[in-house]
Amino acid sequence: MIDRIRDIVPEERIFLDLSERYSYSYDASFGEYLPDIVIQPSNSIEIAQLVKMANKYLIPVYPRGAATSLSGGPLPVEGGMVLDLSQLNKKHIIDRENLLAIVSPGVITAEVHKSAEEVGLFYPPDPSSSHVSTIGGNLLENSSGPKGLKYGTTKEYVIGLEVVTPTGEIIRTGGSTVKNVTGYDLTRLIVGSEGTLGIVTEVILRLIPKPKARKTLLASFDNLVDSGRAITRILSSGILPGAMELMDNACIRAVENYQPSGLPLDAQALVIIEVDGHPSAIEEEIKQCEELCYQEKATNVKVAQTEEERAEIWKARKMVSPAITQMGPTKISEDATVPRSKIPEMMERLKQIREKYQLNLVVFGHAGDGNLHPNIITDKRNIEEMKRVEDAVSEIFEAAVSLGGTLSGEHGIGTLKAPYMELELGKEGLLMMKKIKEAWDPNNILNPGKIFPKPGQTKVVLRA
Amino acid sequence: MIDRIRDIVPEERIFLDLSERYSYSYDASFGEYLPDIVIQPSNSIEIAQLVKMANKYLIPVYPRGAATSLSGGPLPVEGGMVLDLSQLNKKHIIDRENLLAIVSPGVITAEVHKSAEEVGLFYPPDPSSSHVSTIGGNLLENSSGPKGLKYGTTKEYVIGLEVVTPTGEIIRTGGSTVKNVTGYDLTRLIVGSEGTLGIVTEVILRLIPKPKARKTLLASFDNLVDSGRAITRILSSGILPGAMELMDNACIRAVENYQPSGLPLDAQALVIIEVDGHPSAIEEEIKQCEELCYQEKATNVKVAQTEEERAEIWKARKMVSPAITQMGPTKISEDATVPRSKIPEMMERLKQIREKYQLNLVVFGHAGDGNLHPNIITDKRNIEEMKRVEDAVSEIFEAAVSLGGTLSGEHGIGTLKAPYMELELGKEGLLMMKKIKEAWDPNNILNPGKIFPKPGQTKVVLRA
Repeated sequence: MIDRIRDIVPEERIFLDLSERYSYSYDASFGEYLPDIVIQPSNSIEIAQLVKMANKYLIPVYPRGAATSLSGGPLPVEGGMVLDLSQLNKKHIIDRENLLAIVSPGVITAEVHKSAEEVGLFYPPDPSSSHVSTIGGNLLENSSGPKGLKYGTTKEYVIGLEVVTPTGEIIRTGGSTVKNVTGYDLTRLIVGSEGTLGIVTEVILRLIPKPKARKTLLASFDNLVDSGRAITRILSSGILPGAMELMDNACIRAVENYQPSGLPLDAQALVIIEVDGHPSAIEEEIKQCEELCYQEKATNVKVAQTEEERAEIWKARKMVSPAITQMGPTKISEDATVPRSKIPEMMERLKQIREKYQLNLVVFGHAGDGNLHPNIITDKRNIEEMKRVEDAVSEIFEAAVSLGGTLSGEHGIGTLKAPYMELELGKEGLLMMKKIKEAWDPNNILNPGKIFPKPGQTKVVLRA
Repeated sequence: MIDRIRDIVPEERIFLDLSERYSYSYDASFGEYLPDIVIQPSNSIEIAQLVKMANKYLIPVYPRGAATSLSGGPLPVEGGMVLDLSQLNKKHIIDRENLLAIVSPGVITAEVHKSAEEVGLFYPPDPSSSHVSTIGGNLLENSSGPKGLKYGTTKEYVIGLEVVTPTGEIIRTGGSTVKNVTGYDLTRLIVGSEGTLGIVTEVILRLIPKPKARKTLLASFDNLVDSGRAITRILSSGILPGAMELMDNACIRAVENYQPSGLPLDAQALVIIEVDGHPSAIEEEIKQCEELCYQEKATNVKVAQTEEERAEIWKARKMVSPAITQMGPTKISEDATVPRSKIPEMMERLKQIREKYQLNLVVFGHAGDGNLHPNIITDKRNIEEMKRVEDAVSEIFEAAVSLGGTLSGEHGIGTLKAPYMELELGKEGLLMMKKIKEAWDPNNILNPGKIFPKPGQTKVVLRA
């Protein structure tokens, strides 16, 4: 069979050595699964041939970008063939006239930001791994970052795809127009499908004009409920901030501990608000945001007056991930999302979960769109603690769903959340998804072991 | 069987008389098909029971809103059962805190606009039939109107649904959060599915803060290419107008003929540009739009100074539909959409088609998103002319697709465009859609005869 692969892809892009395969056995979640073979295809024709072959010999196929997934998206849980698409990165066109980017899946998301901004355009989705994640992996997980409230999610910017189907056919979905209602929206079905419905080989993204200016503030609150009220007041005043970020007390302490920068250690919540748009509009809006924060009992509001002061504010937010990473060897990063008005209640529940299970749980997130990131810092070798982690994670999911929210706002289901799918979707809802998977991928070749729970599967953290 | 229906729905909401059924035999496209029975269900449980029964006895089910479809969406082409959902309109909640509207499918789209605006919020999608179309029908066709460029399409605002599946199960998709990546995006699959994948029984819409102000201008051009250049210049200057509407010369003449209001009869193109947002921002932006129009050889630019002057400008655009309706008994309204930079080329092709087939063809549309509305005014009783119409329509589709565009930007495929699906999607692309339909609706109960061409079907205008 390896000879057939050599007929499709040249030797130097086929990896069989243990050491090479090992580096494809993990992602940014946890769990390690060794693939049998790793291939770096360089175009959609090679991929289609490989997938056809995989169907013939029933070999699992695992597409992979930069493997920054926090839910196990690219993990080759059933062995088989990893397709490393990070090298499929040659096409990178900005069509200024039609406000489009046409890119290969291996292009780094931050490179799309950069090339768009060079010509005065803007690609809003910005997950925190955007400087390393590929656009292909990014959109298959539909991770979006802080700008979801004002600008929508990644999905809202993907208007066309070239895709290799699970049976090895090359199709095009959508196209180069914002409006397209010709048949079912396969583009949006594939975006967020976590590599289970197709391998994306080309992406057409919609861009928008770059906002001309931005203003940023940092507000401290003694009480989480007050910060929630301030956010709601701002949004119902007609202001739509580009970003509204929230950090809880544990998170503030973690950052200060990692790199002291004068954050208020006794604040129960820090909120970063950024407005963007026309210079005179945002001048007025940021002032109004400041006033509304004070009206809702902010203890301090600092409006950045210079680009340096803005960078200083964002630094605190960007320090969160490194700060908590160094707090322990294993970080469980969740992304339970609730309707925005439920944030204070969800924060309260998270506090109770932290106390009940005696865990190191810090919370930050995108307050504007209700997308919280509760992170548990632990050590996967500590079996006793991991049991508590597992129970805590279950309770986090249950809390989110019971507040009208969702298991995952942007990290995806992958291996880690599969057992909880029915909790949110119900039996019939999950069945409708499975029907699509089975109709498209009758041999279950593409990224098997993801999204759908195995019969009887309940929890996974410990097994990973 | 009728007795079983009476067990599910009370007598007064079941219609069997010919005269009653007749009023459900057409929509805003053309073609007449008499249903065997019409039912007005009042909740999702009744609908689920009716659909289960329909599966048992293999009765076609045709969901129907206000029947403003221009592509035959609700037509009961195989007889059977029409479900009139216009009375399923009781729920109409605006959740100001979470920027959401939760509505029944029978609520009129314009009522959603109204209730949102009453609390300072905004629901951008606005198809021209929004004052009569139901939100359910509106979103199943994914028709969006003039604001697609800046605000995205209807799909971008639908975040959750309650749906009765084709086998009669009640499921919920998505939810109340903008971010949700729990499994496949069934919400966006169902939006735009033209009633073939499920019957929507509740809708959760995302709202945004209402723009504080707006400014509008009307620019005349002697040359279509100049108007295209002006539009591109404006968009690449960093301005994102809320609407950019285009009318060709035939359209201008039609409006002036219908109701004289001083439009320039010799202009080759009229462009309406509206910017919305912060008052001081738009003041500057409209000035810049005016300058850029003149730089690109506009012969005249009129900026509305008052709300009355704005209404006057929009009146010209709103007169288009009534003006062309009275030009002849049959109006064929297309919505071929091309990448925006291809508009001048598409307009040129449309001119050639008009001349080649000697037809009364007027063109207007949403220039910002490339969504044109070529309308042919004809008489369906004139068999000879209808043959020319049919050929002209084929050429319009071919032109759109060959310019990188799509058959349909917002009217849907329905019965009228089904034969052309493969032209745009290719055999394999169409097959992937069909696989979903077959997996979800094994008995082909829900809106059969739509979207997918029958074997050997090539053209439909004459048959309708």
